[in-house]
Amino acid sequence: MPRAAIYTFAADHGIAGEGVSAYPSAVTPQMVLNFLRGGAAVNVLARHVGAEVRVVDIGVAYDFGPMPGLIGRKIAAGTKNFSVEPAMSRAEAERALLVGVELAAQAAQEGIGLIGTGDMGIGNTTSSAAITAAVTGTQVAVVTGRGTGIDDEGYRRKVAVIEQALARHRPNPHDPLDLLAKVGGFEIAGLAGLIIGAAGHRIPVVLDGFISGAAALVAAALQPLCREYMLASHLSVEQGHQAVLRHLDLNPLLDLDLRLGEGTGACLGISLVQGSLKILTEMATFDEAGVSERER
Amino acid sequence: MPRAAIYTFAADHGIAGEGVSAYPSAVTPQMVLNFLRGGAAVNVLARHVGAEVRVVDIGVAYDFGPMPGLIGRKIAAGTKNFSVEPAMSRAEAERALLVGVELAAQAAQEGIGLIGTGDMGIGNTTSSAAITAAVTGTQVAVVTGRGTGIDDEGYRRKVAVIEQALARHRPNPHDPLDLLAKVGGFEIAGLAGLIIGAAGHRIPVVLDGFISGAAALVAAALQPLCREYMLASHLSVEQGHQAVLRHLDLNPLLDLDLRLGEGTGACLGISLVQGSLKILTEMATFDEAGVSERER
Repeated sequence: MPRAAIYTFAADHGIAGEGVSAYPSAVTPQMVLNFLRGGAAVNVLARHVGAEVRVVDIGVAYDFGPMPGLIGRKIAAGTKNFSVEPAMSRAEAERALLVGVELAAQAAQEGIGLIGTGDMGIGNTTSSAAITAAVTGTQVAVVTGRGTGIDDEGYRRKVAVIEQALARHRPNPHDPLDLLAKVGGFEIAGLAGLIIGAAGHRIPVVLDGFISGAAALVAAALQPLCREYMLASHLSVEQGHQAVLRHLDLNPLLDLDLRLGEGTGACLGISLVQGSLKILTEMATFDEAGVSERER
Repeated sequence: MPRAAIYTFAADHGIAGEGVSAYPSAVTPQMVLNFLRGGAAVNVLARHVGAEVRVVDIGVAYDFGPMPGLIGRKIAAGTKNFSVEPAMSRAEAERALLVGVELAAQAAQEGIGLIGTGDMGIGNTTSSAAITAAVTGTQVAVVTGRGTGIDDEGYRRKVAVIEQALARHRPNPHDPLDLLAKVGGFEIAGLAGLIIGAAGHRIPVVLDGFISGAAALVAAALQPLCREYMLASHLSVEQGHQAVLRHLDLNPLLDLDLRLGEGTGACLGISLVQGSLKILTEMATFDEAGVSERER
């Protein structure tokens, strides 16, 4: 049975300063510490399914110092506020992407045979909605959800912020690095690289929810063959996820009204994938079990 | 974490002689032996999720003799052919029901905290469709599926056999024992008793697919409070299952085009239920994790 690992990429978002999230950016590093202590939902579900959680700081706005268990690959202390300037430079987008590619290569070397994606980053549904709207050509309001649970006023602000940012930066939907640089996030770029790297090593990737979905859109835009290595673990409540899965032509395994991210849905999906593999490898054939032929 | 056990009830059906199944009745005991060897899909998935499989011969038309691991509770060597006479006597229906009630009581005593249902019995989708049509008042053709995969001619025969049997016996949908006696099966009666017994001991029951669903209809008709202890693991491809879940007002956790029975879907459902319980018991609260309050 292939060993499974969930990669949870964490990063902060300058756009969070625009009041698009119900929680402050301080929650991103707090949750990273929670992941490292094993107390978060992703840790519980990963233990439940026998997978490992690997936490990557690719852009959290907090200096963790040396921290056992944390994979430190910080590109910058959060993105810039993309309502006023690009989220990152094109060079940073490229570096963030390569972090994921490198981690996938290491996973392959260690014999990891199944990779799950996960994310943490206050503000990242805003970035994911911007990417999804640009790539799929869907209206912003259709792909923008409530994230961690903003109220009606916050929701209207979130939609307006994304619409204005897309109008201001005009990211090229056919140039994924341009898209990442203008409205992306470091964790989304890292996850896109992870997916590309995993596919390159023929490792199936079990996608989590909406943020992982935005990363999958970027990965598939860079290399369409990645799509063949993607499995959608679940359909998120975050409404933009539907447009993502439709665009990628993926059927989610689960539809359980989840919307937590972290890699929680990926854990559940990994268990289903491993169960299917066991059916293929452990189940007796009718011949082996001495079961009679069909009639006539 | 509650220990989980799947109860797979096996029985034969006289109605199988009418050509309503793609496989001969000989497959029922062959699969029972396969369950005991641990080679069937339910064994693979139960091992995957850490549950135990308990196989109950409640009416297989084969003499297993003393057989380690097999729970022998045979009421008769299969039901009678309900296209010509009632499937069983009312007394037999009652005895089969009580087998399930007794096994649930034993499970409670052993400390089993989660029960999954499973079935094996060539011909049992025919009996389940008859029960579902009678209880839900749905047309026979709407609740009759292809079972193990009969062809168009066999399917038309199956629908006609059920329609004629319901017209001949006129089972009283408000008298579940009458229904079981006239068109039921021993495994369906046993599973209905298991559900009632589990609910009586406040043990949640994770239902498998269509056959378990027919048993759940019988259980809920006998004691409506059972419904509160039922979880639907999945929506079966077997089309009558939709009417079952609608009638019971249950939302399936999974929709994976399964149609195997045995308790395979229940295994996957048990893993999701146990994962949810672990979230409730193992996950750190925001307070414990030092996570900041929502803004404002």
